[in-house]
Amino acid sequence: MKKIVFALPGNEKMALQVAGHINADIGEAVFRKFPDGESYLRIISDVKDKCVVLICTLHDPDEKLLPLYFLSQTAKSLGACCTCLVAPYLAYMRQDKVFNPGEGLTSSYFGHLVSSFADSLITIDPHLHRISTLSSIYTIPSDVIHASDAISVWIKNNIPKPVLIGPDSESEQWVSEVAKNANAPFIVLEKTRHGDKNVEVSVPRVDKYIAHTPVLVDDIISSARTMIETIRHLLKAEMKAPVCIGIHAVFSKSAFQDLLSSGAAQVITCNTIPHETNQIDLSSLIAERINKIMKHR
Amino acid sequence: MKKIVFALPGNEKMALQVAGHINADIGEAVFRKFPDGESYLRIISDVKDKCVVLICTLHDPDEKLLPLYFLSQTAKSLGACCTCLVAPYLAYMRQDKVFNPGEGLTSSYFGHLVSSFADSLITIDPHLHRISTLSSIYTIPSDVIHASDAISVWIKNNIPKPVLIGPDSESEQWVSEVAKNANAPFIVLEKTRHGDKNVEVSVPRVDKYIAHTPVLVDDIISSARTMIETIRHLLKAEMKAPVCIGIHAVFSKSAFQDLLSSGAAQVITCNTIPHETNQIDLSSLIAERINKIMKHR
Repeated sequence: MKKIVFALPGNEKMALQVAGHINADIGEAVFRKFPDGESYLRIISDVKDKCVVLICTLHDPDEKLLPLYFLSQTAKSLGACCTCLVAPYLAYMRQDKVFNPGEGLTSSYFGHLVSSFADSLITIDPHLHRISTLSSIYTIPSDVIHASDAISVWIKNNIPKPVLIGPDSESEQWVSEVAKNANAPFIVLEKTRHGDKNVEVSVPRVDKYIAHTPVLVDDIISSARTMIETIRHLLKAEMKAPVCIGIHAVFSKSAFQDLLSSGAAQVITCNTIPHETNQIDLSSLIAERINKIMKHR
Repeated sequence: MKKIVFALPGNEKMALQVAGHINADIGEAVFRKFPDGESYLRIISDVKDKCVVLICTLHDPDEKLLPLYFLSQTAKSLGACCTCLVAPYLAYMRQDKVFNPGEGLTSSYFGHLVSSFADSLITIDPHLHRISTLSSIYTIPSDVIHASDAISVWIKNNIPKPVLIGPDSESEQWVSEVAKNANAPFIVLEKTRHGDKNVEVSVPRVDKYIAHTPVLVDDIISSARTMIETIRHLLKAEMKAPVCIGIHAVFSKSAFQDLLSSGAAQVITCNTIPHETNQIDLSSLIAERINKIMKHR
């Protein structure tokens, strides 16, 4: 079945890379807004009898959902045989449980909605906390890509004598795997949370890594508070300026500037959310999964 | 069945007015955003076994759809017996036809989506062009309120010796009705469209209304181009500065300022979209329809 790759606005670069890897055409579409804020869209390319890949990373998801839904429905109305949503960053993975009375399961509501218009889903390291697989909230076939190997390779190729530093005990398994594949030692921080925003971090036994380059790794860099606090400790302990690596470059408000000015030697992310720090390219992994997930159709 | 009225952010004033008319409680809910742009919400009030009215006008609809959907689903998960969406301005009424190849029927797609989570819909003068009733795109019970009577009353009470002026022949029926109920004469403009933005307007036979106050009426004031062009003609014909009345205060970009500086004596709208020009209150009409639509449940 012939494939065609569409970029939702902002995802053009990833779409080009993925289309190159799977040898597919790039779909042409027009997106604009009416004066009252409604989205207008029009598919220019021929999608009849094709598998349509929709690339749309989902930070700031609220404003993206309708254009994505409309594009999927329009493609099908034009004869596309299926749509596969590639959301390198997947939204609404937090609220998979009622923490306080009056909350809803937005994870499930969002999963249900996406499953109602896309035929399959590919994403990268979603924030799977309490649930273990996407299939408990998405009823469509879904596939999760892990960025850990690509991060290990980047560290091996770019950082001489690294020591990996993970943010908390929850991340230990993941950090240890990245470290092993990068042939590097690792430490995991001890975090004490005092309320919502005040996080105290202690960095155990760093003295023996004084000659190493600390590499902080985390899945999402959002406010960057934990990384900034850790950098402070490391510099105080007279370690080298650390390299910060995240999978998803969410960077709320001034987080990126704050992280740079806190003394990070470098900030590096995977290209799941377009950002100037994207240095670890996961497009070939996405391409592999598209071939796999669409082979079954 | 007991009713409770929730305002989506920005709709607090209308919610208070409607709740007052139907003697219902105002629902308390928390809305905020996570750093990656996801919406968080929590319902504080007890909604169990109640009919939940959700007030959410739908200009700039894309960013509002998910919070609205989540609120409706959360209310139901907490035992609400039904949700009624009050969208004084209803979005996605334009694209009910494929004008150019490659377009989709976003009217239907949007209607389908809303119908999947709300149990009924109340709106005010939606832009019904080619389709004649909402029930051809909404599968839930829906009810359309007309603002014309309220506009007639406002004109009668506020404008001495008015002459109503409608924007085009399509609006003739509506304008003639508003005029009849305001005991006023009316004229309808002749519009010639040269391309997308260039609209030429001719104002026939105004000389006999030289002593009247021209009242321009339209359903949506968006770019305000037609009104501004009409005002130019009227002032050139030495008529009085006109009063401009619209149902829906969309006002894209600088449209409101442009309209004021073009020589309008006053700009007046109904309170379907919160705006400083809202002088015609339709909340009691909404309240009536809520009582009617919910009686059947």
